[in-house]
Amino acid sequence: MENQPNIEELKSKINYGIKFWLEFEGKSILGSGWAELLKSIEKNKEGSLTQAAKECNYSYKYAWNILKRIEKRTGNPVVITGKGGRGGGGWVRLNNWGKFLLDIYREYLNEIRKIEEKLKETIKID
Amino acid sequence: MENQPNIEELKSKINYGIKFWLEFEGKSILGSGWAELLKSIEKNKEGSLTQAAKECNYSYKYAWNILKRIEKRTGNPVVITGKGGRGGGGWVRLNNWGKFLLDIYREYLNEIRKIEEKLKETIKID
Repeated sequence: MENQPNIEELKSKINYGIKFWLEFEGKSILGSGWAELLKSIEKNKEGSLTQAAKECNYSYKYAWNILKRIEKRTGNPVVITGKGGRGGGGWVRLNNWGKFLLDIYREYLNEIRKIEEKLKETIKID
Repeated sequence: MENQPNIEELKSKINYGIKFWLEFEGKSILGSGWAELLKSIEKNKEGSLTQAAKECNYSYKYAWNILKRIEKRTGNPVVITGKGGRGGGGWVRLNNWGKFLLDIYREYLNEIRKIEEKLKETIKID
């Protein structure tokens, strides 16, 4: 008899790693970090980019650059900006393109979570 | 009216990127490249690692190192080796642990492909 590894003992230590992102014409435009920023902007009722950036541990400038990069890569902005608001510095909101990308990303995330559940079960049952 | 991007035009250019791998106690043990090697070993009836490596565009040494790395990270070998065979240099076969990891990886891959189909439909239909 061959001396084979004991799979029952080993399999509980197996896990999955996954990374996913949206692309536009082959360029990465939305992974987990950038999606977090769009979510924070969506959630922020006052339209404060400073606040939304802070929630992601980004500086205002870094967050603004992310928005500009997505705009550059897709050829279209993902936010509408305006002057005024509580801080006086202007507000920012997702436009329909920003919302669309975030929705698609969320759907993707949900599907990924479903597989993860399924696979965890598979390992336990088999 | 706000001037908003035309989503119908844009959405056909969206795609998905995904990377996934198996981990063992938090260490990466099997991504697409290493899984290819295990598949080639499984397929190779003569147990030739030279041949299996070649199919993956790896050198014999590189392929052997991959097997050793998986062994180190999981604390168990993924192959059984022996002497003799057509080339005279010895043969290599997946053991039960190597087969198990490859099977789990394949299931993962299948589930991922299913989501991809689903998401492609979503984008087209919505």
